[in-house]
Amino acid sequence: MAGNSFGEVFRITTFGESHGSAIGVVIDGCPAGLEIDLAFMQSEMDRRKPGQSAITTQRKESDTFQIISGVYEGKTIGSPIAILIPNEDTKPQDYDHLKAAYRPSHADFTYEEKYGIRDHRGGGRASARETAARVVSGAIAKLLLRRSGIEIQGYVSSIGELTLDKDYTQLDLSLTESNIVRCPDPQMAEKMIAAIQDVRAAGDTLGGTVTCVVKHAPTGLGEPVFDKLHADLGKAMLSINAVKGFEYGSGFAGTRLKGSQHNDAFSHDASGKVITITNHSGGVQGGISNGMDIYFNVAFKPVATIMQDQQSVNKAGDDITLSGKGRHDPCVVPRAVPIVEAMAALVLADHLLRSKVSKL
Amino acid sequence: MAGNSFGEVFRITTFGESHGSAIGVVIDGCPAGLEIDLAFMQSEMDRRKPGQSAITTQRKESDTFQIISGVYEGKTIGSPIAILIPNEDTKPQDYDHLKAAYRPSHADFTYEEKYGIRDHRGGGRASARETAARVVSGAIAKLLLRRSGIEIQGYVSSIGELTLDKDYTQLDLSLTESNIVRCPDPQMAEKMIAAIQDVRAAGDTLGGTVTCVVKHAPTGLGEPVFDKLHADLGKAMLSINAVKGFEYGSGFAGTRLKGSQHNDAFSHDASGKVITITNHSGGVQGGISNGMDIYFNVAFKPVATIMQDQQSVNKAGDDITLSGKGRHDPCVVPRAVPIVEAMAALVLADHLLRSKVSKL
Amino acid sequence: MAGNSFGEVFRITTFGESHGSAIGVVIDGCPAGLEIDLAFMQSEMDRRKPGQSAITTQRKESDTFQIISGVYEGKTIGSPIAILIPNEDTKPQDYDHLKAAYRPSHADFTYEEKYGIRDHRGGGRASARETAARVVSGAIAKLLLRRSGIEIQGYVSSIGELTLDKDYTQLDLSLTESNIVRCPDPQMAEKMIAAIQDVRAAGDTLGGTVTCVVKHAPTGLGEPVFDKLHADLGKAMLSINAVKGFEYGSGFAGTRLKGSQHNDAFSHDASGKVITITNHSGGVQGGISNGMDIYFNVAFKPVATIMQDQQSVNKAGDDITLSGKGRHDPCVVPRAVPIVEAMAALVLADHLLRSKVSKL
Amino acid sequence: MAGNSFGEVFRITTFGESHGSAIGVVIDGCPAGLEIDLAFMQSEMDRRKPGQSAITTQRKESDTFQIISGVYEGKTIGSPIAILIPNEDTKPQDYDHLKAAYRPSHADFTYEEKYGIRDHRGGGRASARETAARVVSGAIAKLLLRRSGIEIQGYVSSIGELTLDKDYTQLDLSLTESNIVRCPDPQMAEKMIAAIQDVRAAGDTLGGTVTCVVKHAPTGLGEPVFDKLHADLGKAMLSINAVKGFEYGSGFAGTRLKGSQHNDAFSHDASGKVITITNHSGGVQGGISNGMDIYFNVAFKPVATIMQDQQSVNKAGDDITLSGKGRHDPCVVPRAVPIVEAMAALVLADHLLRSKVSKL
Repeated sequence: MAGNSFGEVFRITTFGESHGSAIGVVIDGCPAGLEIDLAFMQSEMDRRKPGQSAITTQRKESDTFQIISGVYEGKTIGSPIAILIPNEDTKPQDYDHLKAAYRPSHADFTYEEKYGIRDHRGGGRASARETAARVVSGAIAKLLLRRSGIEIQGYVSSIGELTLDKDYTQLDLSLTESNIVRCPDPQMAEKMIAAIQDVRAAGDTLGGTVTCVVKHAPTGLGEPVFDKLHADLGKAMLSINAVKGFEYGSGFAGTRLKGSQHNDAFSHDASGKVITITNHSGGVQGGISNGMDIYFNVAFKPVATIMQDQQSVNKAGDDITLSGKGRHDPCVVPRAVPIVEAMAALVLADHLLRSKVSKL
Repeated sequence: MAGNSFGEVFRITTFGESHGSAIGVVIDGCPAGLEIDLAFMQSEMDRRKPGQSAITTQRKESDTFQIISGVYEGKTIGSPIAILIPNEDTKPQDYDHLKAAYRPSHADFTYEEKYGIRDHRGGGRASARETAARVVSGAIAKLLLRRSGIEIQGYVSSIGELTLDKDYTQLDLSLTESNIVRCPDPQMAEKMIAAIQDVRAAGDTLGGTVTCVVKHAPTGLGEPVFDKLHADLGKAMLSINAVKGFEYGSGFAGTRLKGSQHNDAFSHDASGKVITITNHSGGVQGGISNGMDIYFNVAFKPVATIMQDQQSVNKAGDDITLSGKGRHDPCVVPRAVPIVEAMAALVLADHLLRSKVSKL
Repeated sequence: MAGNSFGEVFRITTFGESHGSAIGVVIDGCPAGLEIDLAFMQSEMDRRKPGQSAITTQRKESDTFQIISGVYEGKTIGSPIAILIPNEDTKPQDYDHLKAAYRPSHADFTYEEKYGIRDHRGGGRASARETAARVVSGAIAKLLLRRSGIEIQGYVSSIGELTLDKDYTQLDLSLTESNIVRCPDPQMAEKMIAAIQDVRAAGDTLGGTVTCVVKHAPTGLGEPVFDKLHADLGKAMLSINAVKGFEYGSGFAGTRLKGSQHNDAFSHDASGKVITITNHSGGVQGGISNGMDIYFNVAFKPVATIMQDQQSVNKAGDDITLSGKGRHDPCVVPRAVPIVEAMAALVLADHLLRSKVSKL
Repeated sequence: MAGNSFGEVFRITTFGESHGSAIGVVIDGCPAGLEIDLAFMQSEMDRRKPGQSAITTQRKESDTFQIISGVYEGKTIGSPIAILIPNEDTKPQDYDHLKAAYRPSHADFTYEEKYGIRDHRGGGRASARETAARVVSGAIAKLLLRRSGIEIQGYVSSIGELTLDKDYTQLDLSLTESNIVRCPDPQMAEKMIAAIQDVRAAGDTLGGTVTCVVKHAPTGLGEPVFDKLHADLGKAMLSINAVKGFEYGSGFAGTRLKGSQHNDAFSHDASGKVITITNHSGGVQGGISNGMDIYFNVAFKPVATIMQDQQSVNKAGDDITLSGKGRHDPCVVPRAVPIVEAMAALVLADHLLRSKVSKL
């Protein structure tokens, strides 16, 4: 009932604070017999880790992980998979000035209100460091999905005012990882990088959007009426730090179309498989995947930690002025791409397993 | 693991198909001792029911409900509250032509794929009729929330291309129910009604957005890291038929601001209570309510049932042309307002109860 | 989190009070495509219903049921199956004298303490009438299990001091339903019936035990480490009204054996299938079924309602003397047989579905 | 849906294999603000750990534990509490001969059947080593319960044929820890120790029973109709390795009483508090605690690993003879006492928190 678990069958429970000894995750419900590709898992961690480029925080975490249980001789054995990710480059003293202060648009105040106590160091449990546990478990989910041919790819579709004017079908997504901002349009990528460097120089920050595409999902994933596939995807994305919105398929823009424009006519492909001619539905109809591409957008607010003075209050109730300190990202959106993918993989893996018992 | 339950403590399980004998809901976890206001509950049902105005479907359902259990002498007694809502005005024969056909952008095809069988009459389980069960249980959630002073109000903020250019703080929300489109701006309401009547005449449909505001929620609601308050609100909204997107606080527009513009500085009100000067956070920080207004937008696609010929396929795999038939809404957004409110009430009631055990 | 649901995949939620309009159940997670045999379901209900013989309560309930949803043209369709069982022969006035009184060894006092309010009529939610909802959903579980060849049979193995001195392998279980006490040994059955008639004449009551055998369960059912098959069976049985104990396989008697006596040596049957030569394990090892017969005993206390004066207290705190009234069973154990079977079926069906995702 | 979590609000997820690097647990839902008494936690671990006396296995595990998260400056902070218990004295080579063999009455065969793969070293996940994770989390549950005055005490009530003929009210439970067999009757304790030493000498093993008493539980714990307090206690106990039965209050013996003998008449104590004069109900009526002592018995089978030759089969399907090897307990019942207490504490803590939302 506390909220640190996600998924019904493929279920993760994450734990750990930013400046404790480690963070980690327990995966319960991964089927036995899955081969674990450690190199792939580390490569996913490397995509998320801090300090990977000039536009991320300079905190240095190798994000190496230890599998404590659930894997034997390279395969899952059906028991819970516990994974530990040590916190290496912690500087708790950087946060001494925040022990009693509430940073604007952070979780300091609300944690204090809810729990009556908090670990203020690096945001404690509210730190985005927790997402490393999502990425490492998402990597295992991806290994499971890969067996069914399901692929997930995310990319940065906007940074601040800079927005890609092409949709994913018009882009070469294989270029995503070719630049540090993870935008598959090289020209736009350069502009985005420059914009991030500009705000960093000004002690300011930017937000943006990640678009994610799931290809080759089978029909039948999603559990009406509450655990619709897109509803679980939405919750997964909204549970990521700094996310403010989620839309799939035609999304908010689709509200401005008429039904006759928006409906996806059914037809067949060459093999006789039922397809839709357009895909405003985003691969999901009635909460269940229809075999077309699933795609969605996730909105990230600008990073709350800025290197500027801000008005705030402290625990005692005094007005204070907070100055920015510590190591932070000027824009988390590029690092959010593997996190979005990981959460999508966790949802898809869960629903893939759930769908095994839908019919006789 | 099937998806017909929602909530952890205040938990509903809905059931029923559009053209069966009844739909209904079981609420488990409503605290004992709550006074049940039947007139209020019926008034909420009346806001959702079909046939209430010129711009809704003409299916006639009184949406009267029977409380089967869990209430004794006017109060909840702690046992499950089962509520039945008979289906009255069913015309199953209207759907005979759809027994083997897949309507575009409906759930016909995906239900068939997932379950290998379906009740085609009126969409069966995928019909929006199911939302009546949400509204009746949401009404009880509202009664619970009311005891804590929490109020929820939704309104239509756009229909098709017609979008209110004021935010909720600039509107008189008490005007919402004064017109059939549920838009608190009377001039805009007239335009919206006219637009809906126009598309109906053309056999077409419209979508739009509902904005919802929760006032007087206490601090401390929401369960990091996965069951963040806004993540559960998002899932709740995305589980409603025809919803394509969810954003809270600054939402997608907030991604275009800089951190220095977006951050909500802390201050105090006259009574000494901590407040934020702006509220881009939408009343939620780190997934936990901060005591400010919670507000969010929900995107509804245009209704999929149109009175025009459409290309499709049938179960046998043949190409077919479908003609629109039956009684349908040209635009569901006005009727969606009480549904959005109900789902918000269910989330808030659940988190209000969950928050009781967060600390000693 | 309230406790009216049972099962993870094949999940039931029961509702209803003894003297409300109806009781019922919602089954969520029954796979689509299961043929529903209404006559079989009613026959199961008839085995449990009151008034069926001279040794049961004379309350007359036909225990007919209505399937509200989830079944179309005779088959399950994957949506929740709601079933209503009207309460017909209610005599709420029989309970007026109990409105403020606490019957010894009943739930009156504890419900009042927990909820601050109660429906005193016929025990309200605490009435064994609730078990009708278990039996009707257990019947559907049995239909599902039957497809895998799994059979469940219970019988009365003791009434008061009268205890069968043979185990199930020495009995002809097909005789169980040939007498009203449901004991497969005809001589013992006669003694048991006589004993029940004697206590009834004395205004007193008896307890006893039900033994239940599950045949042809496949290997692999049960989810270590907490949801061991026998742990879920135990919880299921202990959740039935009046149950005081559960043991499986060698049970309490097995604690007196040595390891060398108790261990079940492995061997093969003629077909090469792995079997154990003895079955002290009761068909479950390490919490997982091993393909042998699963068998267990369930202890039922004597019925708490006696037709004698008893010392008690009332809500106001006064000492009172309670006289027995109303229609009650002198011994519930014979009627408990189908309830035990139903709960076993629900556990088995749930674990059968859960086991589908244990390995790739 | 996999079975490695227990509890609804105070919820644990355990992980780890006997011969992996560590085992551990994540507790989600412990309220913030609880003071963590590390010395007490270690003392509980010491009661369970192997090698503590002449009648236990000689495997040497210090069972020191590391709290990874969820505790800051000596108090819980509301985030998940992850605890790691390293495996120190592993001798995986001791198990090489079991890689393909199935030990009688162990989980080797069933794990292989369920998962298609297993970690054979020391029983892998099925090892009783897993219970260390229960004890360490149970210790935190006890700290929580202690704040409400709730106390839990277990003791050995039988070993093999040796059975205490007094119930807990006739014993001085403070003597339980004064001898290595944890029997509060010193004379009986000596006999039990001698019996265990005898079977060890013969390469054989013994079973027995643990009785557990919960004092000062408030009224109102337990969630009808499925999560009755005793049903959850029963499941908790049955989930412990080697447990074959559970009974509470009058248990199986109570089935032989008449209602007039068994019923617990209500009265008042000197302070006016409602009590029952007898306590056949075992402190639970209708599944809800009534404020009296809660007591129950747990049956443990004799240890399956014996130092004698046994007939078995291997994975290839050959008949084999297995010889006993490795370090094992001749009787686990004394070490089971803290495990039984821990599981009871977890159930009570969970229900204490769940009861907070039963009424307004």
